[in-house]
Amino acid sequence: MNSQQTTVGLLGCGNVGAGVAKMLLEDGAYINQKLGWPLALRKIAVRNLACGRLFNPPPELLTTDPYEIVGNPEIKVVAELMGGIEPARTLVLKAINSGQHIVTANKALLALHGPEIFEAAAKNRVEVLFEAAVAGGIPIIRTLKEGLSANRINHIVGIFNGTTNYILTRMSREGLDFQSVLNEAQKAGYAEADPTFDVEGFDAAHKLILLTALCYGIQPAIEDIHVEGISSITPQDIEFAAELGYVIKLLGLAYRSADDDRLEVRLHPAMLPKDNLLADIGGAMNAVLVSGHASGEILLTGAGAGMMPTASSVTADLVEMARADRSRSFQRTPALGWCQLSNERPKPMSEIRTSYYLRFTVADKPGVLASLAGIFAERNISLAQVLQKRPDENGTVPLVMLTHTAMERDMLLALKDADGLPAVQAPTMLIRVENRL
Amino acid sequence: MNSQQTTVGLLGCGNVGAGVAKMLLEDGAYINQKLGWPLALRKIAVRNLACGRLFNPPPELLTTDPYEIVGNPEIKVVAELMGGIEPARTLVLKAINSGQHIVTANKALLALHGPEIFEAAAKNRVEVLFEAAVAGGIPIIRTLKEGLSANRINHIVGIFNGTTNYILTRMSREGLDFQSVLNEAQKAGYAEADPTFDVEGFDAAHKLILLTALCYGIQPAIEDIHVEGISSITPQDIEFAAELGYVIKLLGLAYRSADDDRLEVRLHPAMLPKDNLLADIGGAMNAVLVSGHASGEILLTGAGAGMMPTASSVTADLVEMARADRSRSFQRTPALGWCQLSNERPKPMSEIRTSYYLRFTVADKPGVLASLAGIFAERNISLAQVLQKRPDENGTVPLVMLTHTAMERDMLLALKDADGLPAVQAPTMLIRVENRL
Repeated sequence: MNSQQTTVGLLGCGNVGAGVAKMLLEDGAYINQKLGWPLALRKIAVRNLACGRLFNPPPELLTTDPYEIVGNPEIKVVAELMGGIEPARTLVLKAINSGQHIVTANKALLALHGPEIFEAAAKNRVEVLFEAAVAGGIPIIRTLKEGLSANRINHIVGIFNGTTNYILTRMSREGLDFQSVLNEAQKAGYAEADPTFDVEGFDAAHKLILLTALCYGIQPAIEDIHVEGISSITPQDIEFAAELGYVIKLLGLAYRSADDDRLEVRLHPAMLPKDNLLADIGGAMNAVLVSGHASGEILLTGAGAGMMPTASSVTADLVEMARADRSRSFQRTPALGWCQLSNERPKPMSEIRTSYYLRFTVADKPGVLASLAGIFAERNISLAQVLQKRPDENGTVPLVMLTHTAMERDMLLALKDADGLPAVQAPTMLIRVENRL
Repeated sequence: MNSQQTTVGLLGCGNVGAGVAKMLLEDGAYINQKLGWPLALRKIAVRNLACGRLFNPPPELLTTDPYEIVGNPEIKVVAELMGGIEPARTLVLKAINSGQHIVTANKALLALHGPEIFEAAAKNRVEVLFEAAVAGGIPIIRTLKEGLSANRINHIVGIFNGTTNYILTRMSREGLDFQSVLNEAQKAGYAEADPTFDVEGFDAAHKLILLTALCYGIQPAIEDIHVEGISSITPQDIEFAAELGYVIKLLGLAYRSADDDRLEVRLHPAMLPKDNLLADIGGAMNAVLVSGHASGEILLTGAGAGMMPTASSVTADLVEMARADRSRSFQRTPALGWCQLSNERPKPMSEIRTSYYLRFTVADKPGVLASLAGIFAERNISLAQVLQKRPDENGTVPLVMLTHTAMERDMLLALKDADGLPAVQAPTMLIRVENRL
């Protein structure tokens, strides 16, 4: 056979990088036992040699110059674990162009620049593996790329962000409001100092983009999908949802519409029936539910983030790289599992159809319900359930409606009219209700 | 590149074979879109040309001579979907020896003759894939072989047989007894005419053997693992379990003991705490819970059997074969993910340690509990909970005990003494309690 070992360099030694270094160094004998030859960690590029880490690799492995790894002919596989777009993108492309293979956990990079990177990799006949980019330790990428490869995917839906699921779970269980759970989570290290990326749905949306590409052979642009976070969800909404038999989750969904076969891709808070398989996924767990035309529904659950779960997936990719290396079979399976991607764009959000939960804040006066009902009737939106609560001390009443399936565009127009009524005293809360999963 | 297509022959056209034929024929264009070249079904060997099937392949594909497939140089991949040991074993070995690659759904064959088959395959540098052999449509084989490849497995535990899970679920929900649910299940086609294989745990044990091999690099002989079915479970046990906060499942478990690092592998009914992730898996669903040292706990759930879910996994293996064929990289990953297997044997059942549920049928007389308690005290088995019920019309009393952790050998000796007491009027029911998963 060819080389005696497969050489690896890491770009980045934060949480994930330190976890991967730990596995390669501490579990080297175990990995060797599986592979039959060593997976040799040669170099780790860091920003700061001295920074405190959860695992400290031997100092002789560290360098502050990423080009001791990128373009170094003695390093076969580059694991990019820096995160962010630049300099990660430039380094990954340079590595690919010099014939190095890439393992990455960088969902933002692949969601926004995947096509460029995958194309460069195919051209150079090098591999790009990214199991760790979606759902941390859960091997969902392989599951879609290989395990369910012969399935037409009916839908994929999941909880892809641990921070927001943790916040929503605590809000549900303890009746706390968003901001106070977020503050606590930040103190405990469960949420970033700048939580926007998680809380507003972008992290989950990046993962959804990659899953959509794997399932449908279409990598949507971030601008083409609806992304909405959880910061406006109130304990009141969670309570009303529970009363109606639902839980609120930050969901990513992709599916072909039964109406017109067009692809719908969206990331937003959603109400799920309590008995849905995803409704019980609590805390920082992630879960992915895939329905294939032959496989039926498959649910995968596990830790969606964290140092070691993410390192588990990165290291699995490195093991596969070693096998590809030994058998000289890089690019055996295309990066996204499709020999050719389609340029089809997802359906605009305004055209999707779903059910809606609406919470109005109205004055406690006669005729308000009649006016609201009239507005919806005019747009042919029919109501499934109405819940009127007792007025609070200011004389305002929370009025909750569940609609039957309606088109998003009609719903938004109706809502604009409704929010223009003098009796409607605050912007109306809208949460999509997913009854059909 | 080499060939223009990857040619496939099927041995067997029962439920699973018909499903695979359906996918290859009806979804051929879709598969081609992923692969870039066709996966061409050339021949299907059947016992009976005329037998009615859920999907009828074109008659010109059918043959009653398996040797039109096995050894035919125009057929690259042989999918063995006959089940049973012979003639499957002979045909698979002949195919391997003539350089054909194997996809199989045959858990019995691989559990009992895996080492012989895998060795022949390695020698001939052909591939043996078997995603469909365990848990139907759930891609657990790839998950263990690749997705979690860098993990040391703390434990793997699961529900691997749909028929028994269906029976236990209905017994739990409706208070029915084993035999009447089994009779109904047979009428509805959920259970085989001869249900022994499912009901007595052998089907699940075969799957557990393969999972153990993937997780630990050790393929235990069936004689070396404890296999026990569900036919003696009564509605009363299910009720007492519920009262104590448990559900009864037919579980397969493999793990290294925390005490002595020896491998324990066993398949038997077990009581699981109600909040365990596996406790909610109802009906014919399968579930596998794997705990890796880095990944943490990963749970996979889905349809564990059935025509199309199983066909989904077989066809995924055929797609991978096509990719291996095109890149000339067969045996890139060893069949079980380990470059070398170990001959280590699992710990004898008599040496395992767990907790126990015991249901005694005793005479309603003074001193019985004292005698029983004395017997367990003598063996250093301590009791965690005792539940004494009202006597029935015959004056016998069900007496339930939960023990703390004890060694199986001590437990069986104590039970022998107990069952020898004149006041003990029927053989005592023993169910192992898994509190530590």
